[in-house]
Amino acid sequence: MMSYCLDDVRFHGELGNGVSSGFGEDGYASIEDAVKVLLKGLGEDINREGYKQKVKDIVQDALFPEAGLDNKVGHAGGAGGLVIVRDLDHFSCCESCLLPFQVKCHVGYVPSGQRVLGLSKFSRVAGIFARRLQEPQHLADEICSALHQEIQPAGVAVVLQCTHVHFPDIELHILDPNHQGWLETLVSSGSGVFEDKQADDWADFLGLLRLRGTDMEKLKFRRSSDPSWCPSLSIKVSSAIEPANPGMVAAAAKIIKSLGEDPLRKELRETPRRFVEWFRNFQNKPDMKVNWFLCGRKDPLSMNRGVDLNSERVYAELGIPFWAQCEHHLLPFHGVVHIGYFISDGFKPIGRSHLQSIIHFYGFKLQVQERLTRQIAEAISPLLGGDVIVVAEASHTCMISRGIEKFGSNTSTIAVLGRFATEVTARASFLKTIPSPASPAGQ
Amino acid sequence: MMSYCLDDVRFHGELGNGVSSGFGEDGYASIEDAVKVLLKGLGEDINREGYKQKVKDIVQDALFPEAGLDNKVGHAGGAGGLVIVRDLDHFSCCESCLLPFQVKCHVGYVPSGQRVLGLSKFSRVAGIFARRLQEPQHLADEICSALHQEIQPAGVAVVLQCTHVHFPDIELHILDPNHQGWLETLVSSGSGVFEDKQADDWADFLGLLRLRGTDMEKLKFRRSSDPSWCPSLSIKVSSAIEPANPGMVAAAAKIIKSLGEDPLRKELRETPRRFVEWFRNFQNKPDMKVNWFLCGRKDPLSMNRGVDLNSERVYAELGIPFWAQCEHHLLPFHGVVHIGYFISDGFKPIGRSHLQSIIHFYGFKLQVQERLTRQIAEAISPLLGGDVIVVAEASHTCMISRGIEKFGSNTSTIAVLGRFATEVTARASFLKTIPSPASPAGQ
Repeated sequence: MMSYCLDDVRFHGELGNGVSSGFGEDGYASIEDAVKVLLKGLGEDINREGYKQKVKDIVQDALFPEAGLDNKVGHAGGAGGLVIVRDLDHFSCCESCLLPFQVKCHVGYVPSGQRVLGLSKFSRVAGIFARRLQEPQHLADEICSALHQEIQPAGVAVVLQCTHVHFPDIELHILDPNHQGWLETLVSSGSGVFEDKQADDWADFLGLLRLRGTDMEKLKFRRSSDPSWCPSLSIKVSSAIEPANPGMVAAAAKIIKSLGEDPLRKELRETPRRFVEWFRNFQNKPDMKVNWFLCGRKDPLSMNRGVDLNSERVYAELGIPFWAQCEHHLLPFHGVVHIGYFISDGFKPIGRSHLQSIIHFYGFKLQVQERLTRQIAEAISPLLGGDVIVVAEASHTCMISRGIEKFGSNTSTIAVLGRFATEVTARASFLKTIPSPASPAGQ
Repeated sequence: MMSYCLDDVRFHGELGNGVSSGFGEDGYASIEDAVKVLLKGLGEDINREGYKQKVKDIVQDALFPEAGLDNKVGHAGGAGGLVIVRDLDHFSCCESCLLPFQVKCHVGYVPSGQRVLGLSKFSRVAGIFARRLQEPQHLADEICSALHQEIQPAGVAVVLQCTHVHFPDIELHILDPNHQGWLETLVSSGSGVFEDKQADDWADFLGLLRLRGTDMEKLKFRRSSDPSWCPSLSIKVSSAIEPANPGMVAAAAKIIKSLGEDPLRKELRETPRRFVEWFRNFQNKPDMKVNWFLCGRKDPLSMNRGVDLNSERVYAELGIPFWAQCEHHLLPFHGVVHIGYFISDGFKPIGRSHLQSIIHFYGFKLQVQERLTRQIAEAISPLLGGDVIVVAEASHTCMISRGIEKFGSNTSTIAVLGRFATEVTARASFLKTIPSPASPAGQ
């Protein structure tokens, strides 16, 4: 536990400029600073008002006259037809928990009145409504209705694929292995000829969407009877857990107000509490210990993972999920950790849940990925004979939200000790055992 | 040809605000305006100077102290190790022809001096150097050297996957069917421990890059002996073609100067001429005719494309490539056109090259995709019995460059006439015959 204490000291030093890293009683005084940090992290050009006016400005400058496209001709009645702009990547902010979520937006419309909208404007309009506190269906409806109002076409169709980060289970402090990666939902909205979901126009739209690999037949649209998509709404807070710090809840309400929203709006009333619950997952708990021995329950996943490499036996425990909170932006990052170590014939591999517990211990706090990887390597090294390799792969919410918006990006870090530090072939062999997915997670 | 003449009149009307659409003699007077339009199209926040200072500003604010990462420990000698940030999408501007090209950037570094760089800064630094007139190897070297200088790590590695739009063959006015989509090149640059491409550190870097589907073993790095990557450099301009309009060449040189570059720099000297050659592909040629009959050469690709659908025979001619120049941004868009029509048993399908010639005729000018699709449908309809469906799928350079930067986005348009206008099942059946690629082109 030495490295943990050491980091803690250094950690307080780093944030010594008035922003307390603790969420305990000493955190009350610096809520103002926290709000500033959070606001900055939430986005650099959040627009507080004037959405309607902005849409008008964007659209009016880019409506081009186009002979031959007329509503008298109609969608299927003439040569003028459906236009779709697909795979527009955006991010939004969940109104239930204040965390960012990713939006892959597809827009279709049937021109009318002999005019077409410049293609880039569909993305700009979607971006205006994405950069608010949102819920997927509401976002789809807003984009659809704004485009319909300004273009006055025969109809507008919007399909959104939204992905939200999962919530860990705050009570167990152990990650549910099924809760890896992202939670996805699919919503749609239609106006004019697209108002009826059974209309032929929808069949055409979905047929065109399929052409570049978005197979809508395999995806299920969200129904109004489905439970809310934000995982914060299904977290059961037991009475055994102390209620969220009221000062922090007030700070979260202040953030909502700063964004130009009403914290008393029905959908937002419980948001501050949920936001704080999320943060409490990453609270620095001095009394929390890695349960070094009790966590070693038998796990069927840990079987059959031995790999014979170059006549040596390297044991590879792959794809252990983790969450962490980026200490630079107070935004989550999550991904998987791969661990490799040498075992001799008589040695029994360490349980996967044991490793999971260690990863969880170092992940569930304000972190940076480089440190997390190093800390895991240092923690497991004495248990595994000193020769270990740890690879972490993560998607960082701060890389998709904020100004940078690099949606496909991800980060890998590696830490090596003992023989893995000196033998390039051992490292290369281990890396080769990690399966390369057909497509990045969450894409 | 009626629709063509009609559009031409309307087209001049649209650009009537001083920007001449013609590249003939009347174009001389409005070069100033053209330069303004082009500059705007080339990017909204091109930085003309101070690159070095900007990198320093970006990096210095985001160098975080991180205990345990030291150059005394070294990459493989301790727990501190390699960090890679992968799949950063950028665009740049080709110094040989002034067209934008896409850059997928992967950066790795081995921290040293107990400090790490905030992850988003790798993308910001890459963006600074991408937004200049560039050549892939030079871009990789600049990113690598700037990061090395400012972070002072044990080493930096940069891998770039660059994709450039193809050039059509200006002489034949017919698209080479092999010249579809993008031209790709792979370059790398290394400093410090990555200076030697045979070093173990490179093996680790490429091994980590593979984990999310970038299989470097299948990709070939560009060698210095390889011919230049920009297709404009391998276009042979025969003496039969009149030399490029000197006024336009001067205008292109002016653009280069406006970007803060020296038009007399060795690599840039011929760029204005090449840029003009590209634009001349899209010149509105009144004497150009679709060679309706001579183009009907036998094409093996047009065989076996008949599809029996619902006991009717719909013939589908799929994936005919096209290029066009977006009239709103003067930037290329390109993709494929799919054509469907009914044939009776005794009817012989029309030759693919014939359709290609028609598509080419309507594509090779300043265009918008909606109009292109409609014009193709109207032009082929009388030849194909009146029942036609035309689908165009395209990537628009204006959607990846400029402020919007939606790298994965693409646009579909559809035009239907006759029975395809009234029968939704006919449309749906045709759309189903179009194969859905595993991943979008150019991704």
